[in-house]
Amino acid sequence: MTRSNWSVPETEVLQRVHERLDDDSADVLATIVDVEGNAYRRPGAKMLLDEAGDGVGSITAGCLEDDLLAAAESVREDGRPELITYDLMDDEDDVWGLGVGCNGIIDVLLEPLTETYRPAVEAFADSRNVAVLTVLEGGDGPLTRGDRAYYHPAGEGLTTPEGTPADEWPAALADPAAVLAERGRTDTIEVDDLEVFIDGLAAPTELVVFGSGHDVGPVTELAAKNDFHVTVVGFRGSVDLEDRFPDADETVTTSPSAVADELDLEERTHAVVMTHNFIDDRLTVEQLLDSSVAYIGLMGPHDRFEKMLAEFDDEGRTFDEDALSSLYTPIGLDLGGGSPYQIAHSIVAEVLAVSNDRTPRHLRTREGHIHDRVTVDSPPQ
Amino acid sequence: MTRSNWSVPETEVLQRVHERLDDDSADVLATIVDVEGNAYRRPGAKMLLDEAGDGVGSITAGCLEDDLLAAAESVREDGRPELITYDLMDDEDDVWGLGVGCNGIIDVLLEPLTETYRPAVEAFADSRNVAVLTVLEGGDGPLTRGDRAYYHPAGEGLTTPEGTPADEWPAALADPAAVLAERGRTDTIEVDDLEVFIDGLAAPTELVVFGSGHDVGPVTELAAKNDFHVTVVGFRGSVDLEDRFPDADETVTTSPSAVADELDLEERTHAVVMTHNFIDDRLTVEQLLDSSVAYIGLMGPHDRFEKMLAEFDDEGRTFDEDALSSLYTPIGLDLGGGSPYQIAHSIVAEVLAVSNDRTPRHLRTREGHIHDRVTVDSPPQ
Repeated sequence: MTRSNWSVPETEVLQRVHERLDDDSADVLATIVDVEGNAYRRPGAKMLLDEAGDGVGSITAGCLEDDLLAAAESVREDGRPELITYDLMDDEDDVWGLGVGCNGIIDVLLEPLTETYRPAVEAFADSRNVAVLTVLEGGDGPLTRGDRAYYHPAGEGLTTPEGTPADEWPAALADPAAVLAERGRTDTIEVDDLEVFIDGLAAPTELVVFGSGHDVGPVTELAAKNDFHVTVVGFRGSVDLEDRFPDADETVTTSPSAVADELDLEERTHAVVMTHNFIDDRLTVEQLLDSSVAYIGLMGPHDRFEKMLAEFDDEGRTFDEDALSSLYTPIGLDLGGGSPYQIAHSIVAEVLAVSNDRTPRHLRTREGHIHDRVTVDSPPQ
Repeated sequence: MTRSNWSVPETEVLQRVHERLDDDSADVLATIVDVEGNAYRRPGAKMLLDEAGDGVGSITAGCLEDDLLAAAESVREDGRPELITYDLMDDEDDVWGLGVGCNGIIDVLLEPLTETYRPAVEAFADSRNVAVLTVLEGGDGPLTRGDRAYYHPAGEGLTTPEGTPADEWPAALADPAAVLAERGRTDTIEVDDLEVFIDGLAAPTELVVFGSGHDVGPVTELAAKNDFHVTVVGFRGSVDLEDRFPDADETVTTSPSAVADELDLEERTHAVVMTHNFIDDRLTVEQLLDSSVAYIGLMGPHDRFEKMLAEFDDEGRTFDEDALSSLYTPIGLDLGGGSPYQIAHSIVAEVLAVSNDRTPRHLRTREGHIHDRVTVDSPPQ
């Protein structure tokens, strides 16, 4: 199979699912729905398996995939979703343990890719948060494995795809779904004997890069590989931004004073300011400090920002502590690199840490799990 | 000009210089020889400019390059090296200051690319440290701007390219050259009225990745972009490693017990262990702990390493504190990402920080200069 497709940005996996739905393919979607102990990937990790045996995305570092292909084949044939458990608890177990090298039990849901998944990929394509609810065990109720419902933050309660069971979904699932959609996390909720996997698909984190110098290229490239939705903003005569920064999802050419009007500067927006033009940087930073963006990274030495603050002060412009605390200059983590790619690597690493609310440090010094575990309260039984 | 060539890994710039020397080209080499204040790049940053006006590498984030092309043209015509100073101290200066956005004075040496530079690129190609000594000001002595000498750690004292002044080089330059070659840093040394730029070209940092799972791909790709010399080591039936990991400089297929024999595990070697096979990982880690490698990153949860230590203990194997302190598990910086590329980004970020002797943290919390400044004692006058 095409191993090169296994390690792709997560955004590409969902884009591929979207394409294959449009192709009316007979693909099988594999999703990790539970991990006990440790594993390479966390619940929600997806892999799309096609009839040719090619896979896009990965749910382990490799050793389960071949077995998954066989399992996918049977799911494709009898057309019914399957829940498979891989017990990797025993590292000496040479069937699985050696290959994965972690102590974990992994539950994987395999299902034929159908139209019932379209609302998920369409929300993702529109950068809307969404929670995908999938029945793992129906128990004695009318719902059966693979039945699906959605929670859209903009809507009210749960919605179900056309032609699928609607009334039977417990309304109590909406609250946990709302939390998971917002945070892009997953959990499995039980209501009586109904067991539902809730897959929160948060819209990709927004990264807006202000600047059009060649040093913007590596930042855009590395950010896209890390699943950011990247917008490159050029000023004045910036031309060919799409051609020069092919990894950008969007490009905008505007004037430094129109930044706040032209762009959606939201709480989930992360901004990197690297125009290398003091006045353009100052105009941009001023509007960013007035906005609610989560992160403002400013390239250049700290005394350059001090000069900016002095000029703001002369003009009577003041900013609250929260805004100023969101500004990082010099930009990036202290990794010691000096080449364009090393600088970009340290910038993207900083944005990753901030967007994930992490304190950058060696993982060996961190207590607890590497991956966040979000657990929402189960609704009253 | 081809802006896409500006942001390339530094290793590619020197590889390109090597190729162009072989092509007997009429290119011009630009090197930052001094930075006062702050700038995007540090001394030693290089850019190769060809007759067509294409540049490879970058010495600023963009705005100086066009002027450099003009300057390069005149250097190409009269065939003599030139030293150009760009004063960016005044950020309001709309000729340069606005474009670079840093308070700095940058000295750039422009010289026709000649055979006198070949020893530098050949040492780099062979992964040998070397210091390139270039005369900036000859003063009243016989040496003139652009005259060149080399310090090879393996050799004795300074050597000079054939057909260039040899006896006139002050022997006192050998000591600072030795330090700079080792550390890959630069400095300008004055002996009486002779001014010499010493460019230490340390061999690329060695990164050895143990494993052949698809998750090795993103690690190899991102490490290569960050100028590591990457070797992928596969065990047993690993096939097609070159095809599967095209960004690797070398690939080796061996047995887990032969790691120490097959590979040069030196002090500048950084190792990433991600075979996802407990026994293979243990055998590899044991040999790495017995070696003098600078860094051992082990993928997997910490309790997995605890189990390894317990087994070493059962076998009566012990390791000293230094060795154990070089082992990082879970591997990577705490950036919070969970996709294959995010995991790889955090691994490469950790190796960068360790290889540059940095404590990973936000640069805004760091005191002093972003770039290391190495100053070696000037020889007695």
